Amino acid sequence: MKPLAYATAVELFEHHRSTLDQALQAIQRREYWSPYPENPRRYPDESANGAQAAFEALLNRHFPLAGPEPVGRAGAERSPYGFDLGISYDQYDAGQLLSRMQRALPSWRDAGPQARGGVCLEILQRLNRKSFELAHAVMHTTGQAYAMAFQAGGPHSQDRGLEAVAYAWRAMQEVPGAALWSKPQGKQAPLALCKQWHLVPRGLSLVIACATFPTWNTYPALFASLATGNPVLVKAHPGAILPVAMSVGVAQEVLGELGFDPALVSLVVDTPEAPVARRLALDPRVRLVDFTGSSAFGDWLEDNARQAQVFTEKSGVNCVVIDSVGSLKSVAGNLAFTLSLYSGQMCTTTQTIFVPRDGIRTADGVIAFDEVAQVLAGAVRGFLADNERACGVLGAIQSEATLARIDECRRLGEVLLDSEAREHPQFPGARIRTPLLLRVDAADRAVYAEERFGPIAFVVATDGTEHSLALAGEVIAEKGALTLGVYSTDEAVLARAEALSLDVAVALSINFEGAAFINQSAAFSDFHGSGANPAANASLTDTAFVARRFVAVQSRRPAATAGGN
Amino acid sequence: MKPLAYATAVELFEHHRSTLDQALQAIQRREYWSPYPENPRRYPDESANGAQAAFEALLNRHFPLAGPEPVGRAGAERSPYGFDLGISYDQYDAGQLLSRMQRALPSWRDAGPQARGGVCLEILQRLNRKSFELAHAVMHTTGQAYAMAFQAGGPHSQDRGLEAVAYAWRAMQEVPGAALWSKPQGKQAPLALCKQWHLVPRGLSLVIACATFPTWNTYPALFASLATGNPVLVKAHPGAILPVAMSVGVAQEVLGELGFDPALVSLVVDTPEAPVARRLALDPRVRLVDFTGSSAFGDWLEDNARQAQVFTEKSGVNCVVIDSVGSLKSVAGNLAFTLSLYSGQMCTTTQTIFVPRDGIRTADGVIAFDEVAQVLAGAVRGFLADNERACGVLGAIQSEATLARIDECRRLGEVLLDSEAREHPQFPGARIRTPLLLRVDAADRAVYAEERFGPIAFVVATDGTEHSLALAGEVIAEKGALTLGVYSTDEAVLARAEALSLDVAVALSINFEGAAFINQSAAFSDFHGSGANPAANASLTDTAFVARRFVAVQSRRPAATAGGN
Repeated sequence: MKPLAYATAVELFEHHRSTLDQALQAIQRREYWSPYPENPRRYPDESANGAQAAFEALLNRHFPLAGPEPVGRAGAERSPYGFDLGISYDQYDAGQLLSRMQRALPSWRDAGPQARGGVCLEILQRLNRKSFELAHAVMHTTGQAYAMAFQAGGPHSQDRGLEAVAYAWRAMQEVPGAALWSKPQGKQAPLALCKQWHLVPRGLSLVIACATFPTWNTYPALFASLATGNPVLVKAHPGAILPVAMSVGVAQEVLGELGFDPALVSLVVDTPEAPVARRLALDPRVRLVDFTGSSAFGDWLEDNARQAQVFTEKSGVNCVVIDSVGSLKSVAGNLAFTLSLYSGQMCTTTQTIFVPRDGIRTADGVIAFDEVAQVLAGAVRGFLADNERACGVLGAIQSEATLARIDECRRLGEVLLDSEAREHPQFPGARIRTPLLLRVDAADRAVYAEERFGPIAFVVATDGTEHSLALAGEVIAEKGALTLGVYSTDEAVLARAEALSLDVAVALSINFEGAAFINQSAAFSDFHGSGANPAANASLTDTAFVARRFVAVQSRRPAATAGGN
Repeated sequence: MKPLAYATAVELFEHHRSTLDQALQAIQRREYWSPYPENPRRYPDESANGAQAAFEALLNRHFPLAGPEPVGRAGAERSPYGFDLGISYDQYDAGQLLSRMQRALPSWRDAGPQARGGVCLEILQRLNRKSFELAHAVMHTTGQAYAMAFQAGGPHSQDRGLEAVAYAWRAMQEVPGAALWSKPQGKQAPLALCKQWHLVPRGLSLVIACATFPTWNTYPALFASLATGNPVLVKAHPGAILPVAMSVGVAQEVLGELGFDPALVSLVVDTPEAPVARRLALDPRVRLVDFTGSSAFGDWLEDNARQAQVFTEKSGVNCVVIDSVGSLKSVAGNLAFTLSLYSGQMCTTTQTIFVPRDGIRTADGVIAFDEVAQVLAGAVRGFLADNERACGVLGAIQSEATLARIDECRRLGEVLLDSEAREHPQFPGARIRTPLLLRVDAADRAVYAEERFGPIAFVVATDGTEHSLALAGEVIAEKGALTLGVYSTDEAVLARAEALSLDVAVALSINFEGAAFINQSAAFSDFHGSGANPAANASLTDTAFVARRFVAVQSRRPAATAGGN
């Protein structure tokens, strides 16, 4: 039973087919590719120009979306740049919402991969057109600076969504639709069976979004689940609802136009006082849970949402090991950008930098530990000297908790560079802080081996590079990490770092200088999280991320009696 | 660091490459294919002739395998055909065994997919050559009749092993080894990174074998884990160690010849009094657990082995719905074989047959419920009338528990056909029982909706086919099933059955008569278990079964400074 608009959705699929084909080639090659330009100048002027007004038109209003009869409203977002968004969103009775989505599942399942692919690709294209508007929404919920909010919240998120669609498509294509199974029986006629395989989604998919990357960390799961036939509830973080609501709105618009129930993608909002994620995650109808956030809640989900496949990205301690460098200035300049970008609120930001206490070899001779630490601190200071540029890189601090954490952490080591408040040229109320850089000793493991989310980093004095590598390995094995950086001019050290990266399954960046940054992760090329250390049990995006979202159910009948033959 | 014999293993891979290529094509098409002949006459005479003696030479001895220093011996297998095997096997200190396997992991990981593939393919070929010897071992542990023990325990198991290797290979090939990522930077030179992806196994893989299909249900996990780089511990069922030990022996022989640690595949034996599976499954080094057996233990593993990916095949209630048929005799004859084969000790055997109490339509008019039940009972009786043929189909009852269950179940309904003991022409002590067929009412849900493992089946009187389908759906949703059969001459009923099969994710067989049997599952074509109802959380073999056994770990460095460039 195909829904009425099946044909239209398949037409859409054909319309977007070449994008998908390129994406399929990209995930196989993992070279550079992006269909959604990250350069704002590649978009029509009017889409950039109208975005501010479009964003402002959303403020201080109700944000309508499709769903069952609302039972209340929620929403108390405040921009980290210092003003209330004043937007309310509908809340639904969970039972009613899940029942409605459950009812919509069979028609979405039976529409098949092409129709679902057509819908997903169209949603992504429309999200792309809305990138500037989304940029304002991402900026004023996450605190990301505008340029980053545009790139990371718009095209880079869309890239990640398309990447998930491509992985899902490839995995589904690996199951044939039908086959004639004809087994030789010696002198007798072969035994012939007509077999069919149906792709069956797991069930309802709950995607729990985070406050810092509400689109980038949500789209992979949203599109992987949707493409494979699972209705998706996106539970927004109370602090960053708008970008999620806008994305859900676009999905609902496309679904509705094609005759599907728009509630196949639904928004769930809650409040810090009355959170709903736990209850939803345990509902027997919810068979997929995706989460980005704290290890505490991620571990809880893994331990308790037993009826579901659970995909998590959690806390971690990203490390850098400095052994030897050509130019310390160049390395320090590179790390200064990584430590500063979005005030260290990226899950890939380096936190813990291991440096031998006897210093490091450089092209200019050995540089002592204290000088290395001072050069690093100086590089950050220098990079952020110009306040306007600094604000454009740092963005604002998303949460009060992170703000408080900076103050709490000051006492944890010797301050190499203190965190300072900055005033944003346009938003005087913005919560802007520069990185805090502390010097600690290898022995202070409780300090540096714990995630200190935000603009907080440690330079750790070790007994030498072997010690640095061993500590990094232990910390990552125990606490997890998404990134490990290593700087060395010695190939033997790099080989040891690479061996270590396999042992603790962490992505390694080697001798990053210039414009290559450890904290950046490109769709269609970089796997985000290995899925095999405590920082994440899943990877964005690999085959395991999509293959667990559907199963193949077969039917078979003797060939001679098959219907219609 | 490649082990010395890396080149040899890769040569082996090239040697077996065409087999793998055909297997890859087979899993994409899922038409009929098998590289390992199921017809014993396709093998050289001497391999069949020498097998009996080779098997007997193993009896009443110690079975040596590679491993750490043994700390004891175990083994008390008794053939269901009535004699003790008298074989002992080494037991190891778990800590020592796991440490040794952990130490062997990096060289196996770093050997790469080709070398590992070469080893796996060579193991499978040598297992194939040993099929007759394995047949004796399978027969005298599981109780399967010789012909079935040969086919199911030999070539069909090898097919399933190769299928897993093919899935693993395809999944690994989907991750490129390296790429040059070159991102345009407007007027500046592109940002170029050399990226490499390493395939990293999850860790140690624990495969917990069952007593009825010690090779068929073990090889998929064993080969999927091994091919993806995970050392494998196979924990044999105390009642069926020998086929597992022989398989481990072949794997160790190949590994050893190629310079790998033979303990990369290790046997673990225990006793019913001192079981070790729970402790091993919770060891932090064990990252993969595969299990075939009871729901009680399977559910326990899923709930408790939280550090591991857990793949289970558990209990279920396989159903048949009879709506209408052409020839009842033909249908009854088909079901008689399914109910009789290996005395119903297959996880795919039909247990619960729903028939409308008002009877069914046939080409010969409506046949009343009681007559349908009698025709079914009569078909089984007739099929097993010849004792020699009966023994060749029934095989023997594997466990005392199953034997006792037959007696316990007699009182659960009206006996349509009583289970009777038979005497085996060669083995007078064999535990041979014909099927017990009971008539019950739809209301007796506690009776027929519970797995009654063994030669025990129910004919259930329902209010009609709608009721039958509804009951089958409810039972399967609650208890799980690997198979659902439906018989109808009405395409509308078949369509409803197919829709139901999607809702409860169960493999459907439609109007099976003649030589097509509901309980048979062919590698390279039939998925065994959907992984989405309570009978199994995994499928043999789909992409999800292999993709979760390894991760991709990347390293990246600026292109200009890449080593050797």
